[in-house]
Amino acid sequence: MMNFDEVKKQLQQESNSTNGSIVDSMPLKFYEPFVVQGIKVDLVEPGRIICSMIVPPRLLNTANALHGGATVAIVDIFGSAAIYTDSVAARRVGASVEISVSYVDAAYAGEEIEIESKVLRVGKVIAVVTVELRKKKTGKVVAHGRHTKYLAVSSKL
Amino acid sequence: MMNFDEVKKQLQQESNSTNGSIVDSMPLKFYEPFVVQGIKVDLVEPGRIICSMIVPPRLLNTANALHGGATVAIVDIFGSAAIYTDSVAARRVGASVEISVSYVDAAYAGEEIEIESKVLRVGKVIAVVTVELRKKKTGKVVAHGRHTKYLAVSSKL
Amino acid sequence: MMNFDEVKKQLQQESNSTNGSIVDSMPLKFYEPFVVQGIKVDLVEPGRIICSMIVPPRLLNTANALHGGATVAIVDIFGSAAIYTDSVAARRVGASVEISVSYVDAAYAGEEIEIESKVLRVGKVIAVVTVELRKKKTGKVVAHGRHTKYLAVSSKL
Amino acid sequence: MMNFDEVKKQLQQESNSTNGSIVDSMPLKFYEPFVVQGIKVDLVEPGRIICSMIVPPRLLNTANALHGGATVAIVDIFGSAAIYTDSVAARRVGASVEISVSYVDAAYAGEEIEIESKVLRVGKVIAVVTVELRKKKTGKVVAHGRHTKYLAVSSKL
Repeated sequence: MMNFDEVKKQLQQESNSTNGSIVDSMPLKFYEPFVVQGIKVDLVEPGRIICSMIVPPRLLNTANALHGGATVAIVDIFGSAAIYTDSVAARRVGASVEISVSYVDAAYAGEEIEIESKVLRVGKVIAVVTVELRKKKTGKVVAHGRHTKYLAVSSKL
Repeated sequence: MMNFDEVKKQLQQESNSTNGSIVDSMPLKFYEPFVVQGIKVDLVEPGRIICSMIVPPRLLNTANALHGGATVAIVDIFGSAAIYTDSVAARRVGASVEISVSYVDAAYAGEEIEIESKVLRVGKVIAVVTVELRKKKTGKVVAHGRHTKYLAVSSKL
Repeated sequence: MMNFDEVKKQLQQESNSTNGSIVDSMPLKFYEPFVVQGIKVDLVEPGRIICSMIVPPRLLNTANALHGGATVAIVDIFGSAAIYTDSVAARRVGASVEISVSYVDAAYAGEEIEIESKVLRVGKVIAVVTVELRKKKTGKVVAHGRHTKYLAVSSKL
Repeated sequence: MMNFDEVKKQLQQESNSTNGSIVDSMPLKFYEPFVVQGIKVDLVEPGRIICSMIVPPRLLNTANALHGGATVAIVDIFGSAAIYTDSVAARRVGASVEISVSYVDAAYAGEEIEIESKVLRVGKVIAVVTVELRKKKTGKVVAHGRHTKYLAVSSKL
């Protein structure tokens, strides 16, 4: 039997958890620090950034692996950073147009992963970057993402 | 001139912020509560969930709009929830295969948005769902996402 | 054992088929007519187009179902057409930024499918549209696509 | 003024063109030969295929560049081929789950492009591959695609 009540109950529990007071007291614009805290920047060169992180407890899903949402956040944040290594892009205001991620393998708590962001192109108005997450030990791909940004001259899109 | 040092400095600042101690002390598996806290479940029916939220300060980006990463997290979490309204899917262990999001318009702090998740299909092994974020006042689309999950019989993928 | 030779042989056969002479003699810019020939336009309104087609023999894959590439071509062509129902977009030159498709179910030879293109937004520079292919008889979704275009003022991107 | 009539007229013209009789007389399962005819296979190794082609007249769009739909067809066909270089995948029946493409730059008639397909993983049930199209002369990326397939043991999905 379909159990809608259970889905509803679980969603409401999550959205009203015992951690609610911690969450409510969080500072403004907390999303990026929440995700990237502890990520080490290993290399920054024109059009390419390599970082590494040990999968932290707070970003785990119920299967004890890196949460799919956190993976996309990494694609978002480090893809953008790679685009801003370009001198033209650096003078623009970027807005995300599209982000997509393929989940290829699980990265478990405590595993070290390497994050490589590679710019495919910074055009006059559109920039495209790929971000690959790999296990540092084996080189196995964990996730592959692509991020397309619109580069506005002024802040008015 | 390309300013790699600045990109590197900014990334390292973010990953080592003054909020670091708050982030480090966060409980296990904190990603979902962090995102969904405060989201109201308005409707749960077979294959469809509607929720609503007022864009909270903690999920803003530097332009004071809902962070693109938070948008994907919503597509991830509420897309999954809609899939689990299906009786077959409910008995399976799901793993994300692909998530993609198109950013259509900005949703600013304090705006109320409606989140509609609609299952396209729950097959024997693959389930696909769309998640649309809209401004409640105008109905204008903020973002459109799609989430594909693999449904495993056992927990071994 | 991995059989590279076989993959290579098959690829080369396909790229040098007995139909080669037919293909070589094809007129300029033949891709769109090749795909859309026989598609019926049922409705054109601002921001929305509905078409229908009976899956033709030439667009089948080896499993006798609509070829995945043809599905994307439909998302490309009819998504664009829906965008051009907008008066602003109609005066611009569009270039595809991103196309993505989820394959949800097979549509077999002779089945009638309905194609619905819905514009999510035509902004100043970016337009986004979804295209859904459904079986006409049952309403079951066959594929769901999204197409993002850049709208240039002049023809120079 | 919005010109629905014009959009409708153009769509109907395309779907009922003077080339209609050529298209109608095309053989069964003609989509792949139509696209891949003339593509040269340069390298096939486990998990990787490199091909090259000179952009042919029949695959041009109205801007005299490789048609976006043809680009996806290449991602579809050559991505699949790379997956089948894997011995496990070779014994399965694959079905496309998701294809996405970012259009990065135009490839004009007569330009030589290189197509590199790289398998990210062939798992027990899901395989993921990236396909990049580059200009042979400059190495500049033309398009980047990703293709996810479901690998079924039998032909029943």
